[in-house]
Amino acid sequence: MTYPNLERPAGALKPAELTSAWRLLSPEDRVAGFRLLGSAESDEFFLELSSPDQAELILGLPPNERTAWMRMLAPDDAADVIQRAPAAERDALLALLDAPSRSEVLGLLAYAEDDAGGLMNPRYARVRPEMTVDEAISYLRKQARTRLETLYYVYVLDALQRLLGVVSFRQLFAAAPDKRVREVMRADLVTVPEHMHQEEVSKLFAAHDVIALPVVDAEGRMKGIVTVDDIVDVVEEEATEDIQKLGGMEALDGPYLKTGLGRMLRKRAGWLAILFFGEMLTATAMGYFESEISRALVLALFIPLIISSGGNSGSQASTLVVRALALGELRLSDWLRVVRRELVAGLALGAILAAVGFARIVAWRALFGAYGDEFMRVAVTVAASLLGVVMFGTLAGSMLPLLLRRLGFDPASASAPLVATMVDVTGLVIYFTVASFVLL
Amino acid sequence: MTYPNLERPAGALKPAELTSAWRLLSPEDRVAGFRLLGSAESDEFFLELSSPDQAELILGLPPNERTAWMRMLAPDDAADVIQRAPAAERDALLALLDAPSRSEVLGLLAYAEDDAGGLMNPRYARVRPEMTVDEAISYLRKQARTRLETLYYVYVLDALQRLLGVVSFRQLFAAAPDKRVREVMRADLVTVPEHMHQEEVSKLFAAHDVIALPVVDAEGRMKGIVTVDDIVDVVEEEATEDIQKLGGMEALDGPYLKTGLGRMLRKRAGWLAILFFGEMLTATAMGYFESEISRALVLALFIPLIISSGGNSGSQASTLVVRALALGELRLSDWLRVVRRELVAGLALGAILAAVGFARIVAWRALFGAYGDEFMRVAVTVAASLLGVVMFGTLAGSMLPLLLRRLGFDPASASAPLVATMVDVTGLVIYFTVASFVLL
Repeated sequence: MTYPNLERPAGALKPAELTSAWRLLSPEDRVAGFRLLGSAESDEFFLELSSPDQAELILGLPPNERTAWMRMLAPDDAADVIQRAPAAERDALLALLDAPSRSEVLGLLAYAEDDAGGLMNPRYARVRPEMTVDEAISYLRKQARTRLETLYYVYVLDALQRLLGVVSFRQLFAAAPDKRVREVMRADLVTVPEHMHQEEVSKLFAAHDVIALPVVDAEGRMKGIVTVDDIVDVVEEEATEDIQKLGGMEALDGPYLKTGLGRMLRKRAGWLAILFFGEMLTATAMGYFESEISRALVLALFIPLIISSGGNSGSQASTLVVRALALGELRLSDWLRVVRRELVAGLALGAILAAVGFARIVAWRALFGAYGDEFMRVAVTVAASLLGVVMFGTLAGSMLPLLLRRLGFDPASASAPLVATMVDVTGLVIYFTVASFVLL
Repeated sequence: MTYPNLERPAGALKPAELTSAWRLLSPEDRVAGFRLLGSAESDEFFLELSSPDQAELILGLPPNERTAWMRMLAPDDAADVIQRAPAAERDALLALLDAPSRSEVLGLLAYAEDDAGGLMNPRYARVRPEMTVDEAISYLRKQARTRLETLYYVYVLDALQRLLGVVSFRQLFAAAPDKRVREVMRADLVTVPEHMHQEEVSKLFAAHDVIALPVVDAEGRMKGIVTVDDIVDVVEEEATEDIQKLGGMEALDGPYLKTGLGRMLRKRAGWLAILFFGEMLTATAMGYFESEISRALVLALFIPLIISSGGNSGSQASTLVVRALALGELRLSDWLRVVRRELVAGLALGAILAAVGFARIVAWRALFGAYGDEFMRVAVTVAASLLGVVMFGTLAGSMLPLLLRRLGFDPASASAPLVATMVDVTGLVIYFTVASFVLL
């Protein structure tokens, strides 16, 4: 690898220039640009990069320059960088850390990436309950110089590292200097179990308006803190997964343009094939109704209109329920309330579409003489089918996510395409059944 | 209003018990439960509630108890509570605040709710550049006692309130006591313009790994700070809006079960009717192909299968592009890269479905003698149409969000149902055109 710009002096590039060009640069150009930053600026620039970018940058630097950058990272960030690096490079990166950091990072790497333990920072401000406020503040001042990245809350631990209480740094700072920490701390604590899934952790943050939460093990010993800035990433990641599943595919687990085409096709082809097999049932169902179609060809004209209306109303209902479940606004036990709401909604929405559909057929008859002498029976068939199909779609769309959750699957798999496929087959059956009563 | 439990002593209820029951309680029971908390516990409990819950609780208390709770809120939270209260109550709530807070809150209420100004807290830690570190710390200690809620970053302002630099409190705390603030501060700042939309603000937080960002006006004067805990709510809110739009409806702007039925129907009926009008074109298109259907009734059997395959592949593509745009992974200028990727993806996915569809028809012929003597032509027609429809669906699904963004609309309106509707009409045209060459 060459560094063509090395002759240009450090500071020749402003961080803002590099940031705005970053996305468009090749990995080599990023390294070259980074080496043109002033030294204080490059520290800040580096620390604000995402973990994958930090990993790429460190691996792009010559080995003798890597140590300083790895050691600049907090243990949770260093663990992230190591996780993002190719497997063959991980041990080499770990070896760059000093011994105490290395053991902290190894401890973090033992957690699953989407557990609370995988999110947490093992460095936090800790004091003893019997210290005075003044003693605690000067003790923290020493910690802040060496191995503390955050100073939002101060955690009160006993000699066995068990978490007794918490006090916000601001409150400690503002308290009377000779009070004991025990007197100013709050003992009624929200804690995160170390193996809690990150989605649950993000719900805890949503329920409690805090900057950081302490992570404890089964014995109540404090292991680290999760800060809300990591939760922003979690919330965004989980929303992306849900959105992609709702679109009828597996979650991509990476940026669209950076996901290899083969990988992306695999994520899409599976669900597309499943939906296709499900949709084949429509061909089977249509086979049963072939004679009805031959007797009244006009029936075929409205097939797409009717089945898609069921799919659209089902997509609305499933989307609402999936998101409400994800946000914790809705629980399984609420299913009866959902049924009642969606029955009313399906009836109202179906009635609207039925009225429009009826008017469309009558109008086309009047304007263009379409649909033959039986146009009124056609109009009634279409309207009644729309009402039935929209009601069924709404109900099926709202119940499917609850059923999936009940069975232990991800409700977000109740995608618009899956609901539409389910409703298509039923929609055809409803349509031709109505037709056999009204029209044939 | 009665408070039946008033005889029970304060502290009779634990905050955790109230939290777990909260969702199920009526507003009256919430107030009653809240009054059973111990006094220190009720402070913490109150401060951790969401703004709508805080508003509901305050309005549920007798007027003489409201003042203390309103005055406990930071100005940005008080502004939120007032915004959530019914219009008739707002002036009364404002009047409960002391004069300086009232003017701060009025200043915040002047901002649009989803602007940076509407998110920010006007109270933040401020120092002068010429102070020593020690002077700054004791100055902050005084501020912390009175009117400071957060102490993550310390902002360095000149006499005109213009923002000169920032230093994290931890760094200030750890710095040599006799250094000047000017020497330890960082002057290379990321700032948020006061009228920036909250979605843009959340992107700034995603790009910079920070706990808080300063909000400045056009003259560079500091107005307040936005903290990352508010950004978690923004990210979740924006994802919910996108998910609901992608489901083919307007964003609900509230929890599913708490949204009135009439309001929910309006949010759903509009798009459902638009989609229905679009889908009516399929009936028109089918009208043109009536004679083809009458000549080969077998064509009708595969209509749902073919058009839904286009819709499903289009839904995948639009979902991916909408989310990538929302996360800033994709820009309008990337459109050609998207076209290339989706052309290849459409070709591959279409080929898979075409092969499955072809095999299905040949197998049904062998097993059940279906589809008559022309079954091979039917199979070729269906397979070729699937290839064409999936390619068109993928391309249309990926380009529609980019087009919407280009025209200034929200890309998330490119919902699965909208894409499916677009593709249905084209799918029919592709299918019958192929059929007229191969089969008829």
